Formats: sequence, C-alpha cells, structure tokens
Amino acid sequence: MYKATINVQLKSSVLDPQGSAVKGSLHSLGFEEVENVRIGKTIQVWLDTGDAAAARKQVEEMCQKLLANPVIENYDYQLEEGA
Amino acid sequence: MYKATINVQLKSSVLDPQGSAVKGSLHSLGFEEVENVRIGKTIQVWLDTGDAAAARKQVEEMCQKLLANPVIENYDYQLEEGA
Repeated sequence: MYKATINVQLKSSVLDPQGSAVKGSLHSLGFEEVENVRIGKTIQVWLDTGDAAAARKQVEEMCQKLLANPVIENYDYQLEEGA
Repeated sequence: MYKATINVQLKSSVLDPQGSAVKGSLHSLGFEEVENVRIGKTIQVWLDTGDAAAARKQVEEMCQKLLANPVIENYDYQLEEGA
C-alpha cells in the first residue's frame, strides 16, 4: 500500500477569489496584519500496490487527468509506503 | 513578513463526501488500485509583522475563529520568515 499526498495550488499569476474572501473575513475579525491569503487543496490517495514506480506513474496520470487543472494550477506530491 | 502554511484536514472519523466522489471518478477513469481518497485545504497567509511570537499567536487565533472547524477538522501549520 502506498499513500500519495498531492498538493494542488493555483499558479501565482491566477487570481484567487476564495483567498480574497478569506482575507476580507480575517480583516473584519481584526487581523489587520494579513497581507495576502492563497487557498490550495491537499489530496491524500491510498493505492493498493506494492510497486513504487507503478504508484508514482499512476499519481502523475491522476493529477494530469483529474486532480489538477494544468492551465491554472501547479501540483507536487509525496509518496509514502505502507501509510 | 511571515508566511504561515496552514493544513486543515477532516478528522479521520468524519465522512469525506468530496473524497468519495473523487475516488469514484478515479475508478471510472480506470484507477482501480485507489483504496481511499481524503481531501483537505492548504491555506497560505502572509502576515505583515516582524515578530514570530505575535505571528504564531495570530495564526492560532485565525484557525480557531475562522479557518478550521474544531468539531470536524484538525489543523497544523508551519511559519516561515520573509517568504
């Protein structure tokens, strides 16, 4: 069993409306020092395979096909055995 | 300036409908080895302060007041200077 932890973030050039909304809320709660907020996703995927290379290949394919939008997002991931 | 990277995850005892939906989609794309999927948030907050202790205190307060729901979510964070 392998566990992939995939981090998906908007590219820095892309506007983050969700982040802006959270920033506004934090300001209204009195957190004036907040300069900027960016929101991303952490996707944990457990794979029933004993082969690290196969797991790595599948994670890349999942990211490109479904989990990350290459036009507006960047992704990276860590792979752990037996998690 | 400090940058906090806050990771918010559903508690393991809490059902993750979003993760289940992604799991179903991955299966329909042919990724049969996927056993489980859990989705979390990564919130990056830039703070205009030069004081690490003050930054840490604010991040804790932000998490408890807005960014994480203590009933169903866990959070942890890393703090970097000058990011």
